[in-house]
Amino acid sequence: MESRISIITLGVKDFLAAKDFYTIGLGFRASSAGSSNIVFLDAGGVGLALYPRDLLAQDAEQPDNGSGFRGVTLAHNVARREDVATVLAQAQSAGAKIVKPAQDAFWGGHSGYFADLDGHLWEVAWNPHFKFRADGGIDLSR
Amino acid sequence: MESRISIITLGVKDFLAAKDFYTIGLGFRASSAGSSNIVFLDAGGVGLALYPRDLLAQDAEQPDNGSGFRGVTLAHNVARREDVATVLAQAQSAGAKIVKPAQDAFWGGHSGYFADLDGHLWEVAWNPHFKFRADGGIDLSR
Repeated sequence: MESRISIITLGVKDFLAAKDFYTIGLGFRASSAGSSNIVFLDAGGVGLALYPRDLLAQDAEQPDNGSGFRGVTLAHNVARREDVATVLAQAQSAGAKIVKPAQDAFWGGHSGYFADLDGHLWEVAWNPHFKFRADGGIDLSR
Repeated sequence: MESRISIITLGVKDFLAAKDFYTIGLGFRASSAGSSNIVFLDAGGVGLALYPRDLLAQDAEQPDNGSGFRGVTLAHNVARREDVATVLAQAQSAGAKIVKPAQDAFWGGHSGYFADLDGHLWEVAWNPHFKFRADGGIDLSR
């Protein structure tokens, strides 16, 4: 197995609202690969797909019965400490709920969380210990 | 906001077992950025972090009360149809549970799902409609 995540798929209740949130609200670009109920967004080195939650459960052959904390978070890392609050404000303007305002973190950085329209959690973080690659991703090669 | 996912963090119950599953079992490489209870794996263009689930809930200020389907799946796309079964078998050998064996999909590809030690769902997929970038990621630029 190549050590790679190709796509993260988020199950969504209102597909068009979710698509608008990520494209118009947050600025992700939809690729031409989608159809009427799936969209693939270019999220840097990885794809972010939005798909109706009931169909996602069905595809994975799981009962669509989940509730509460999902045990998964997505992180958007920024290059400057002050960008954390800016990105959280942008997400809030687009309809996200701020679940943890920007604040200093015990590990020496600065971060906050928002929940998207379907409750998927995003951390917005500035981590002074990380280096960025030329393409903007975090350099985890060492 | 730059349109990028930097890191996907999976909450795990047994940190060392989860780390072994992903590093020894699946072949992901741990970066030096981790500590005694967090590991950052290089997952291609994006980072895959493993962190105790209760601490992840606490960091996001959420009650750690989730159950059932999480509404999130990770996908590992392969270049050849026959690789789907091979990767699922590797995951099973490493301790994963096969939740959907490799099979032809309605959208023209071939895929299956495994659940990791904590129930996080991975789809292994061959999608003939996708093109790969030189670095091995899916090309969603068009």
